[in-house]
Amino acid sequence: MNGKTVSVVGLGDMGTALADALLAAGHRVTVWNRTAAKADPLVAKGAIRADTAADAVLASKLVVVCLLDYDSVSQVLGPHTDVLAGRTLVNLTNGTPGQAREMAAWAAEHGADYLDGGIMAVPPMIGKPGAFVLYSGPSGAFETWQPVLDLFGESRYVGDDAGAAALQDLALLSSMYGVIAGSLHALALVRSTGASAREFAPTLSKWLQGVVTWPVEAAERIDTGDYDKDVVSNLSMQSAGFANHFIAAEEQGISAELLLPVHQLMQRRVADGHGHEDFVGVIELLKR
Amino acid sequence: MNGKTVSVVGLGDMGTALADALLAAGHRVTVWNRTAAKADPLVAKGAIRADTAADAVLASKLVVVCLLDYDSVSQVLGPHTDVLAGRTLVNLTNGTPGQAREMAAWAAEHGADYLDGGIMAVPPMIGKPGAFVLYSGPSGAFETWQPVLDLFGESRYVGDDAGAAALQDLALLSSMYGVIAGSLHALALVRSTGASAREFAPTLSKWLQGVVTWPVEAAERIDTGDYDKDVVSNLSMQSAGFANHFIAAEEQGISAELLLPVHQLMQRRVADGHGHEDFVGVIELLKR
Repeated sequence: MNGKTVSVVGLGDMGTALADALLAAGHRVTVWNRTAAKADPLVAKGAIRADTAADAVLASKLVVVCLLDYDSVSQVLGPHTDVLAGRTLVNLTNGTPGQAREMAAWAAEHGADYLDGGIMAVPPMIGKPGAFVLYSGPSGAFETWQPVLDLFGESRYVGDDAGAAALQDLALLSSMYGVIAGSLHALALVRSTGASAREFAPTLSKWLQGVVTWPVEAAERIDTGDYDKDVVSNLSMQSAGFANHFIAAEEQGISAELLLPVHQLMQRRVADGHGHEDFVGVIELLKR
Repeated sequence: MNGKTVSVVGLGDMGTALADALLAAGHRVTVWNRTAAKADPLVAKGAIRADTAADAVLASKLVVVCLLDYDSVSQVLGPHTDVLAGRTLVNLTNGTPGQAREMAAWAAEHGADYLDGGIMAVPPMIGKPGAFVLYSGPSGAFETWQPVLDLFGESRYVGDDAGAAALQDLALLSSMYGVIAGSLHALALVRSTGASAREFAPTLSKWLQGVVTWPVEAAERIDTGDYDKDVVSNLSMQSAGFANHFIAAEEQGISAELLLPVHQLMQRRVADGHGHEDFVGVIELLKR
């Protein structure tokens, strides 16, 4: 083996995909999972089974962790703080910015470098085009291990705040749920006429291709807080026109619940005296 | 003049843009607006001012109507049913499928062909690449007038149900509001760290480019109602993971209200015993 030694802790679908990518690239991979049998397919491909999580950590300078949640990470690594010093933990477990920052502080206390990561892919996409992983934490640790991390997908370093990767991960996911929510309403409306989703979906996707530039168009107003300049269609008009969505949903017998909160924001912003401004100003109402 | 004679009733920003496009192509254009002064710039470019709405209708075989709402259309055209016979009304006023169907029945009663349209553009885009207009109603009338209608943008005929254009218009708009709502949440989250929206927006837009294929991927399940087959990430897991959005929003001091209804749908669908299925099944809960 010419590759580096890497440990993977946690062999769910995602951990297994990560270990697979490492093995495929010729790395020496030590794996551990609470339910040991989960390691069998990887061991059959050449991975080394660690008997304990501590053994897995001890086997490599680079330890990739991918568990169910941060509580699992604490349970699995918490008892083994004595073996962390001098290693780099790359935690790809889903969590929040706050959890990542807390885990970074804990790792630092025990002498480990800590990178937090957000995987923007489902397991079958790992190592394939389109997959990317957000990383945050010390840039030196990222640079050292980037050649290995690149095996999972495009590596994007987003800053030294350990929470930055989780934050951007959640930001991107939330925008995805927005696309899905809007598309669900659209498809339910079209289906209510008896038309097929398969026939309308390409039109919808093509339309959305043109819409996704919205963040770029809105960004300057958001940064400057100037919602008054060059208003093409003002918030009052958009909010009034929005009523047609609810009337049409009623006519067609579908629920418009997915559209409610954006309209409520619009109405509150108009009531606050900003009806003459650009729609984007509703973002002020999301600040607490 | 070599062009056809066309009348435009309603000279708001959109009606003016439509009349402008017709004039620019060499058509003889008769215009009418309740506030007559709105016609001045068009008259300066060669349009003919009608003194009454009835005169405007009488001037052309093709009458394009673009008013504030359907109530305005009824007020303006209602008293002039005697001049409608043998003409084609193209109603580009924003409305609902039900309003369009009602207006189509009314026009038929008075001997006019009726096309309903949904303009997928803001006024400055009229006649420019990217603008398109949905039309529904009798296909013969659409075919007759398409060469003129094409001046507004790409003409897309979506069926003989007069309500189809308004329905697809609202469907596309609702999906746009989904993109905007999701992006607003994402940008509020990123801004809460002090980062700039302008820096993050290109990443967000690029990510969304990959996400907008979702309708095409979901369409077969929606048409067949089979949410069980080939599930990659099941609804229970997605619904549980969704909690991180609310925790992160709380940590960062922003409101997660825009994400609430999609999560509520997920939770209700899981509670109904569909947690093992694909996410797309939540669309069942939008049916009334």
